[in-house]
Amino acid sequence: MSNSNQDFLCDVKKVFFDVKGDDKGRLVFFQNGNNLSFDIKRVFFIYNTKDCISRGHHAHYKTKQLLVATSGCVQINCEWKGRKESFVLSRPDMGLIIEGMVWHTMDNFSSDCVLMVLADSYYDEADYVRDYNEFLRVSGQ
Amino acid sequence: MSNSNQDFLCDVKKVFFDVKGDDKGRLVFFQNGNNLSFDIKRVFFIYNTKDCISRGHHAHYKTKQLLVATSGCVQINCEWKGRKESFVLSRPDMGLIIEGMVWHTMDNFSSDCVLMVLADSYYDEADYVRDYNEFLRVSGQ
Repeated sequence: MSNSNQDFLCDVKKVFFDVKGDDKGRLVFFQNGNNLSFDIKRVFFIYNTKDCISRGHHAHYKTKQLLVATSGCVQINCEWKGRKESFVLSRPDMGLIIEGMVWHTMDNFSSDCVLMVLADSYYDEADYVRDYNEFLRVSGQ
Repeated sequence: MSNSNQDFLCDVKKVFFDVKGDDKGRLVFFQNGNNLSFDIKRVFFIYNTKDCISRGHHAHYKTKQLLVATSGCVQINCEWKGRKESFVLSRPDMGLIIEGMVWHTMDNFSSDCVLMVLADSYYDEADYVRDYNEFLRVSGQ
């Protein structure tokens, strides 16, 4: 997976989801073929993160992810195709789709932040690009 | 799916998950073949539920679910095989596996509660048993 000539998927897209329910309570769902473009293989959530902490600092060769702050807020900093952009996730009906070859970091976690991540792959350490220079090389930047 | 002689799966199990990380931040993950016994087809979360509201009030013919309060707390009331039991979900590393033919309601939502549900099926209204007497009939009680 170290061939820099491969065409890796690398895009970032902010997405919004319909909210079901009313003033009594709300519900947001995610399902491939409905409002999600991939099969969910793995789910994880990040919580109790100190506000001075920066997480992430990696890209993936292949894994596509959806990130949603189900409570609180967090800033997601992305770098892909020579472009850098930051996104604030602060609503449970808003998410960020991050394709593989996107270097991303997460910071400014609010104390109540729960960041839910849906991934289209099972965990595989070999799919992680944890070295920034390797990311630049592999992504052809 | 109205044959009361079918053997429906109906069990409830409290489960605990490993927490990754340290004092800087924490992470809990769910993956079939690792710490989950089913493929995740659908994810939804319930939030902003008023504390006087009772939700749920249904069973499923087949769907198996994992419920986790990723923030706040909520009480899950289950009825299956003639047995009734309530469970309080109040920790992000604790969940409740609810198999299909379990009548369940949810109440006592804390104002900050986010109840995440992972389901092993795509949404199908025909899989819902929303009538309590039908539940009793189908489950043979």
